[in-house]
Amino acid sequence: MLPFLIIQPQVTQALAEDIGSGDITAALIPEKNQSTAHLICREAAVLCGKQWFNEVFQQLDKGSGSPVNIVWHFDDGENIAADQCICTLTGSARSILTGERTAINFLQTLSGTATTTAGYIKHLQGSPIKLLDTRKTIPGLREAQKYAVFCGGGSNHRHGLFDGILIKENHIMAAGSISNAIETARANSPHTLKIEIEVETLTELQEALAARADILLLDNMDNDLLRQAVSLNQSNINPAKLEVSGNITHERLGDLAQIGVDYISTGAITKHLRAIDFSLRFEKTS
Amino acid sequence: MLPFLIIQPQVTQALAEDIGSGDITAALIPEKNQSTAHLICREAAVLCGKQWFNEVFQQLDKGSGSPVNIVWHFDDGENIAADQCICTLTGSARSILTGERTAINFLQTLSGTATTTAGYIKHLQGSPIKLLDTRKTIPGLREAQKYAVFCGGGSNHRHGLFDGILIKENHIMAAGSISNAIETARANSPHTLKIEIEVETLTELQEALAARADILLLDNMDNDLLRQAVSLNQSNINPAKLEVSGNITHERLGDLAQIGVDYISTGAITKHLRAIDFSLRFEKTS
Amino acid sequence: MLPFLIIQPQVTQALAEDIGSGDITAALIPEKNQSTAHLICREAAVLCGKQWFNEVFQQLDKGSGSPVNIVWHFDDGENIAADQCICTLTGSARSILTGERTAINFLQTLSGTATTTAGYIKHLQGSPIKLLDTRKTIPGLREAQKYAVFCGGGSNHRHGLFDGILIKENHIMAAGSISNAIETARANSPHTLKIEIEVETLTELQEALAARADILLLDNMDNDLLRQAVSLNQSNINPAKLEVSGNITHERLGDLAQIGVDYISTGAITKHLRAIDFSLRFEKTS
Amino acid sequence: MLPFLIIQPQVTQALAEDIGSGDITAALIPEKNQSTAHLICREAAVLCGKQWFNEVFQQLDKGSGSPVNIVWHFDDGENIAADQCICTLTGSARSILTGERTAINFLQTLSGTATTTAGYIKHLQGSPIKLLDTRKTIPGLREAQKYAVFCGGGSNHRHGLFDGILIKENHIMAAGSISNAIETARANSPHTLKIEIEVETLTELQEALAARADILLLDNMDNDLLRQAVSLNQSNINPAKLEVSGNITHERLGDLAQIGVDYISTGAITKHLRAIDFSLRFEKTS
Amino acid sequence: MLPFLIIQPQVTQALAEDIGSGDITAALIPEKNQSTAHLICREAAVLCGKQWFNEVFQQLDKGSGSPVNIVWHFDDGENIAADQCICTLTGSARSILTGERTAINFLQTLSGTATTTAGYIKHLQGSPIKLLDTRKTIPGLREAQKYAVFCGGGSNHRHGLFDGILIKENHIMAAGSISNAIETARANSPHTLKIEIEVETLTELQEALAARADILLLDNMDNDLLRQAVSLNQSNINPAKLEVSGNITHERLGDLAQIGVDYISTGAITKHLRAIDFSLRFEKTS
Amino acid sequence: MLPFLIIQPQVTQALAEDIGSGDITAALIPEKNQSTAHLICREAAVLCGKQWFNEVFQQLDKGSGSPVNIVWHFDDGENIAADQCICTLTGSARSILTGERTAINFLQTLSGTATTTAGYIKHLQGSPIKLLDTRKTIPGLREAQKYAVFCGGGSNHRHGLFDGILIKENHIMAAGSISNAIETARANSPHTLKIEIEVETLTELQEALAARADILLLDNMDNDLLRQAVSLNQSNINPAKLEVSGNITHERLGDLAQIGVDYISTGAITKHLRAIDFSLRFEKTS
Repeated sequence: MLPFLIIQPQVTQALAEDIGSGDITAALIPEKNQSTAHLICREAAVLCGKQWFNEVFQQLDKGSGSPVNIVWHFDDGENIAADQCICTLTGSARSILTGERTAINFLQTLSGTATTTAGYIKHLQGSPIKLLDTRKTIPGLREAQKYAVFCGGGSNHRHGLFDGILIKENHIMAAGSISNAIETARANSPHTLKIEIEVETLTELQEALAARADILLLDNMDNDLLRQAVSLNQSNINPAKLEVSGNITHERLGDLAQIGVDYISTGAITKHLRAIDFSLRFEKTS
Repeated sequence: MLPFLIIQPQVTQALAEDIGSGDITAALIPEKNQSTAHLICREAAVLCGKQWFNEVFQQLDKGSGSPVNIVWHFDDGENIAADQCICTLTGSARSILTGERTAINFLQTLSGTATTTAGYIKHLQGSPIKLLDTRKTIPGLREAQKYAVFCGGGSNHRHGLFDGILIKENHIMAAGSISNAIETARANSPHTLKIEIEVETLTELQEALAARADILLLDNMDNDLLRQAVSLNQSNINPAKLEVSGNITHERLGDLAQIGVDYISTGAITKHLRAIDFSLRFEKTS
Repeated sequence: MLPFLIIQPQVTQALAEDIGSGDITAALIPEKNQSTAHLICREAAVLCGKQWFNEVFQQLDKGSGSPVNIVWHFDDGENIAADQCICTLTGSARSILTGERTAINFLQTLSGTATTTAGYIKHLQGSPIKLLDTRKTIPGLREAQKYAVFCGGGSNHRHGLFDGILIKENHIMAAGSISNAIETARANSPHTLKIEIEVETLTELQEALAARADILLLDNMDNDLLRQAVSLNQSNINPAKLEVSGNITHERLGDLAQIGVDYISTGAITKHLRAIDFSLRFEKTS
Repeated sequence: MLPFLIIQPQVTQALAEDIGSGDITAALIPEKNQSTAHLICREAAVLCGKQWFNEVFQQLDKGSGSPVNIVWHFDDGENIAADQCICTLTGSARSILTGERTAINFLQTLSGTATTTAGYIKHLQGSPIKLLDTRKTIPGLREAQKYAVFCGGGSNHRHGLFDGILIKENHIMAAGSISNAIETARANSPHTLKIEIEVETLTELQEALAARADILLLDNMDNDLLRQAVSLNQSNINPAKLEVSGNITHERLGDLAQIGVDYISTGAITKHLRAIDFSLRFEKTS
Repeated sequence: MLPFLIIQPQVTQALAEDIGSGDITAALIPEKNQSTAHLICREAAVLCGKQWFNEVFQQLDKGSGSPVNIVWHFDDGENIAADQCICTLTGSARSILTGERTAINFLQTLSGTATTTAGYIKHLQGSPIKLLDTRKTIPGLREAQKYAVFCGGGSNHRHGLFDGILIKENHIMAAGSISNAIETARANSPHTLKIEIEVETLTELQEALAARADILLLDNMDNDLLRQAVSLNQSNINPAKLEVSGNITHERLGDLAQIGVDYISTGAITKHLRAIDFSLRFEKTS
Repeated sequence: MLPFLIIQPQVTQALAEDIGSGDITAALIPEKNQSTAHLICREAAVLCGKQWFNEVFQQLDKGSGSPVNIVWHFDDGENIAADQCICTLTGSARSILTGERTAINFLQTLSGTATTTAGYIKHLQGSPIKLLDTRKTIPGLREAQKYAVFCGGGSNHRHGLFDGILIKENHIMAAGSISNAIETARANSPHTLKIEIEVETLTELQEALAARADILLLDNMDNDLLRQAVSLNQSNINPAKLEVSGNITHERLGDLAQIGVDYISTGAITKHLRAIDFSLRFEKTS
């Protein structure tokens, strides 16, 4: 569960950009009208975003005498089949209509990321390998998307530049060598963080192992090279954890699972987005 | 060009979620190092997001003695071929590395929406029909995505519930009839706004025309029904503008262009996202 | 009803500027004291601002164990006679005294705008002409004042530069001609918006009609010229809507109603302000 | 000069409510157009609001390559005659047109308060009596209006509940007596603040003098009663300062000046508003 | 009691800096677990900060189905002995663990300032002299610390530059002389504020008395000089109030009490901080 | 260097709480006056807080025509002797006087934390052991204090609950056992984070080593017990890193350095505060 501190301002911002100075068309709905509406998902998906959906209506309720009540039939992270009723809303018809699009926009976006993640996980066929996200996320939704990746069965890499060390090509260049870079990082970083470094060749891998890196990011290696990397690493006294990135496709996941790396990371699950198709069906309104 | 008032807080928010308490790995780069880096786009695309990209580095510059200078080779809305250099950054190596991901996340997201839009436009084969976006957008990025749709050659539907009237099924139900709904809307809305109403059958269309709706949203009609709708509308003394939505695919756009409607709207260009593949290539750093 | 999203921060801001680091004099009131107080209006008026008044005490209640309860005897938009009791507050004496001025400042300001608007409407003597506000509003209170205009029986023109097109002299100059300006606006604006253009002579009016403007803003024309404008417009196949502005006085409203224009707009109802005289009368406090 | 910390967010808020998602009509002005425009005041007034006016264009400049330069011919607090040129703007035509209304709204509002204040001051005919404002201000503009009162020649009473002690009827009731109230206030308040108390009769005045109040607020007394109050006060060993409020009209100011009170306070100068008539005249645009 | 408007954003900020993207370790606690925990104070102290402590858990509760209930056994300003139970929390184990540090950080900081203040007060041995704080406070905690000083038995000097006049050496230099400075201040300041001026010699003191300053700040005078200052002041017809600052130690307070000044101000009670040692003891969790 | 995103709002908040509606006394200083002032430190210290000090005057400059220029003679982290000139300010006398207290409050607070930290470090006599801070910080200043600890030669533990795993007594209780707790944490946490667990006995230590914890927090052990813990750990195949906390005094640091633990953490360096004594000395003002 994400801290409410993150969810609340996101919902305020999304309501502000949709409602602005007011919902003009809502004037057609008498203020006293009550409705019941069912949220339907038109396709199989992994649900994600209940807290945001609820918060949309809680914020709208504040200025209204007639709150919207929501009963959920599924939890975040659960699989939903096509055409199932996800939740039922009862209350002010105006509030439901005014909040509908904003609430669904959160749900379709975050369920989209969760569902895409679950699609990758499925191809790992039960392997203990963890599928990781990256920092390639949609601006403003970093934490929300990382939560969605978790709901889809994935795991979170560092959340930003502040909670993980990842030494890349340019850092190595500036430090002079792989071992210098690792030493400098170890001397200057919080002791609670592991040291991860990107390597592209087996020579670099051996240099990083010698400098006792905790995690190696094997970037853009083909399966053959990866097999050699795994083997070299296992022959080390203190083997590092191995993370693979670059050209991660559904098809390749089975191979990667067998090669024996620890983590697979891919930007595709958060930078691309296939929104899930939700819609509200209204019962008769009174 | 979007108001700077919208861009500035988005960039602040995105930097905050990526940098947080600080870029730990940046400590590997000596504070005085200067770099030159080229932004490469690895695929053909329509560029969108320069203001956000620039603002990322302007915000980072404020706390730094050594600003980053950016020279652009393309404008928002221009077509870029694969592997072209989009812009060149020179300045503090730390600032460039710290801002790189946030700046590219904006560019890959907004260029993604612009490029997807342009892909639809291409299939309209020069028809004067306008392709419109919807309110199905990524939370927090409504205005940014609408700007990206514009860059991709599309047009903007209403920005939210505040600047356009769109009478839907539930509004009609509450108002009692199509004509009542249109009358109520006309009486209560700003005189600067047209009245748009959703119709699903030819009977509804005739009722809406009789009530002098300005725009009809023909939702989920097949091409045959659309042809009849166009014909009925043209035989009216004051024909309405016609907008089509539902099942808008690349393949169908040619047909829709010939049928003679005025606007085509689709949520797909803003609710789904295929990010464009940008990356920074660093020259030697001094 | 204005979105609560707009009201809440306005009340927070107003409380902050009045209370700051704390109500020093309130220390004279024992924390346990309970009061009943009646809000009296000392003059005939149209009420406006209940949501803001309520929200002042709801925000003060959050830090207090003893909430203030408010029972209203009138609704926004209703006429109140002099010396009537508008609402009754019961609860913490400290909270009532601390919130009194801020709550009344909202009510006296917004009821002032509503009452001034109603004063204009009365002179229209039942004509269907709509009295419109403008963008000449008090900074920070645009939406609140537009809501007050509505409560006073007026109608809202566009809320800002974002939700309506109004082509003025300088836009025409830049576009080269009235017809160019209208064409450019039609090509580039959301299809949900009508095109309004300002004209000052009959020649300009005819040029604008020829270019099929939706609304003509007849600025600073005397009654004779207006009569000719109405006549010319009616002889057009697609007559435009006519809005009049400039020198709008109570006395002239009857004439304008007979001349047959559609809308009258005036900045006077929102840029000037005659606050209504409200005060709290306390019953014995326990 | 008001702290910039107060002006900056007010301008941001006012621009946001006017520009929102963007100035649609501005699209008619080519981005490269440069303009010169003169700000004219159509009536005699006291100028107030230059900092806000400047800040509007400085905020718009941030997102624009072409800044607006402003040359002022008058200072805040100076008298301006009708039809004088107040300042001259040169720069981006789009920016000038987009910012025009927001910038003028600040100037017309604050110059309105300054001019109204000066109107009262004039009737004091050079008396050393100070004209004071109150807390009856327009929500959100408390500090700005107090600055305008100062520019109009008036003086500021306390800015809020936090920086001055004013014991009113309800505080006295709660404290049990006038002397109790004054003692309690003296014991509990910052030693840098004087003690002011409202009295409505001569008996109350004597009780307050006996308790060594620093300032007496003589509320709703007629001129005869005021003369007796002044006389009683002067016969006291430590006379208090005397402030008069209630029924303060232009006509009565001369009498009050002769009666010999120290301060006159009136809500009318800040709760009512007569905006000053400013407008921009554009020279030919290139 | 501080305005809730000040407490709420402080707690939000403190929670944000501690929780950020989420409490990782909390995942070890099952979401349904309920706990009872007792807040113990390990040393004698003056309690201060209940509102902040409560607000921490109220903000955490918003996103949680299972609120935390807090029963307090002491009030702000009360003396607590070592090892007493200050309050008891019952509710979601996760919420209690997540909020524990932030809630205690407020309490240990503010109780620290209250306790330090009480330590000074004790050495005044019942004298009516008031011990005052200064503007030397911890950034961001000005109002909170002034409230803590009040809880510890001290009094508040001005809260900032906005609510009190204190003429210092540089102001005198700019005004040309002590009497000029006092005259200018009297002419330009709100009439509700007293005039305080800093003097360092007896000559300056006499000049300030002659100019009828309300309060004299005797800075860095030794006890002998202070005695002469008190004597000179008392021989004046309108003696000023006397405030002493500089080298204020526990030991010297008894002397100062006898010398007969009115106020003693010291930055030490707010710029230094000795946090009080609180900790949570958990009962068995279910 | 802390991200500017963190410094900027802290300075805005501190200026707001000190300046509020304006610096009343500043009116005594003519607007055109220019000053030169030297910042003196009256005691030996480690400097920290230059960015905050600079930002105070940069924010004040925005509303002023006459900026303040600052020339620094020391860097953050450098030792300064008593009575040295730290920096020299030249510019608007008003701005320097208005910003003086806020700017110094940051510097005295952060230099206080840096200097206290350096005092501990000195007693480690060159040992490679790292002195760590904790989450016991002053609310609102977490990141600023962690930066000050770094400037004083200390190292940063996790910044909050979001960037480090620390399993405490209550987490272990909830998880059932030390090994369960460690397994659960390893399975659910970002792979970039090490697992740290608190142990109080040698039995617990062995259980934690068996479960392959990365870091052991040895809480409240005396030196003898610590020596046994070190010995047990070294005999393990994969020894953990050892962190000591509880009763960390200057006197004990030498012993701890010899016992051979890796890290020492103490809340005292951030929860207590001894502010450094800075003051501005003005040269003649023109």
